[in-house]
Amino acid sequence: MRESDSEEMSQNPFDQKKRAILSQIESTDETHPDASPKGTLDVLLLPLIDVINSHSDYVTTSSCSGRVSVFLEGMKTASELGGKGDGGKWLFITHDPEELKSTDWWSLVTDHREHVSESDVSAGVSSIGNGEPAKYDGQRYVLYKFEAMILHVKCRDRASASALYTAAMSCGFRESGIGSNDLVGIRISLRLDVPIAYLNNDGTTTPLVPRQYIDHLQTISLDLFNKNTAKINQLHRTVASMIQAQQTAANKPQTAKETKEQRRERKHREGLLIQAQTRQITPEAPL
Amino acid sequence: MRESDSEEMSQNPFDQKKRAILSQIESTDETHPDASPKGTLDVLLLPLIDVINSHSDYVTTSSCSGRVSVFLEGMKTASELGGKGDGGKWLFITHDPEELKSTDWWSLVTDHREHVSESDVSAGVSSIGNGEPAKYDGQRYVLYKFEAMILHVKCRDRASASALYTAAMSCGFRESGIGSNDLVGIRISLRLDVPIAYLNNDGTTTPLVPRQYIDHLQTISLDLFNKNTAKINQLHRTVASMIQAQQTAANKPQTAKETKEQRRERKHREGLLIQAQTRQITPEAPL
Repeated sequence: MRESDSEEMSQNPFDQKKRAILSQIESTDETHPDASPKGTLDVLLLPLIDVINSHSDYVTTSSCSGRVSVFLEGMKTASELGGKGDGGKWLFITHDPEELKSTDWWSLVTDHREHVSESDVSAGVSSIGNGEPAKYDGQRYVLYKFEAMILHVKCRDRASASALYTAAMSCGFRESGIGSNDLVGIRISLRLDVPIAYLNNDGTTTPLVPRQYIDHLQTISLDLFNKNTAKINQLHRTVASMIQAQQTAANKPQTAKETKEQRRERKHREGLLIQAQTRQITPEAPL
Repeated sequence: MRESDSEEMSQNPFDQKKRAILSQIESTDETHPDASPKGTLDVLLLPLIDVINSHSDYVTTSSCSGRVSVFLEGMKTASELGGKGDGGKWLFITHDPEELKSTDWWSLVTDHREHVSESDVSAGVSSIGNGEPAKYDGQRYVLYKFEAMILHVKCRDRASASALYTAAMSCGFRESGIGSNDLVGIRISLRLDVPIAYLNNDGTTTPLVPRQYIDHLQTISLDLFNKNTAKINQLHRTVASMIQAQQTAANKPQTAKETKEQRRERKHREGLLIQAQTRQITPEAPL
């Protein structure tokens, strides 16, 4: 208890940062749901976030449990690459499969009326609506996206970052990585990125897909939400086990030393991880 | 010169690994175009790969310059999450925008005839083709994907990994990360993931989108190829500057200079790759 108290008041930079972040989260109550500017703390991730923050070497800094969004691209300029563009906006966002089912979000797309200025039209959208696929640089598409959960965790040091990274990779979060300053990003490739409509000169939208396609998107998204939840739960179990194993080991300092056999097994495991990491880009299969 | 020689014969584990990887690339000649099954070394990435490998702290381990693919999902089982499934296959893959333009890949989807066994049908695809969107677990979709370039670089130590990671992030490769063992993955979010058809019980496919939608996908993909190329070039310039700045700072101009032997090997490698490209054979990079 005393040790924990002294740790809480530690002047160590990591401990200070962790205290600041946790106090910000704690102030995020019902009356101040957005007290923390970083990410969205949502219910689905809470058990995982709690177990991570229970470890003295970790603190979560931002998160999203996964979402569906419908986004109208902004005006693009020649210099811009892959950005949202000027004036892009979300027409619909949900983190909740039930809300996805109960919302007629397709009407939000088809009924949308965008204010389009004269200068916007002359800037490059003039080729749209003549039956030809327009030049993308001027075209503003409406995109339907499914994005899986993402979680950032600030770690005390490289060793703790590596342990968390390894746990995430072993659960299939293959797009995870350690950033600068031992910030681990946990990411997985479950996604949809689908153009579903485009914006006309007069600010109306033209659907690119039939109504039935929207039903398919919804069905697929509900399945992805399920897979995403299963992956979050798997990661939660794995991180909890990892932390428990570390704590058990810490109580037996003599076992801290790795035996030859343990070292061999660890090297084998690490090798598999590296394979898994690099394999994600190599499904070059049948050319 | 002597320093470079001794470095080349160093027993340091990183130097040994780098030598092994580079010699594997060099052995990828006309008679053994597939010496390594992992990854694709393609021409678009060569200048970037060369500048990275010219640095004694880095060696590229796998890469893909970016591609469009059309993938028929395999049979899914309840236990599987987000995988390719059993029997999934690519109907079309290209890394080349010109090939995308000149190939009638949509016919490869609409004309596809998949061998579907009785057990496959009873396993879960029986709800397909009745006009209702089928349950995803049994449904096998055809997916159209654009995937941006990805590059893995094994680094000598944490400091060199951090430097490369920071360079990549500064160019907008925001999904980059450092893995275990100082392997940096360089990734960017330029993508399409679009269901375009599904498989019927009889092995035929049903399009989910009208023909005009395919033209839009193609237009958007060509634009993404352009953005991807611009990003690769930006990263190349940034990494070259970083290396030059490091070498200036280290005040060791001799390590900057490619030796005659290194230059000969590089030219040889580039020549083989260009030959391979003109024959439509893609040599595989080593891991």
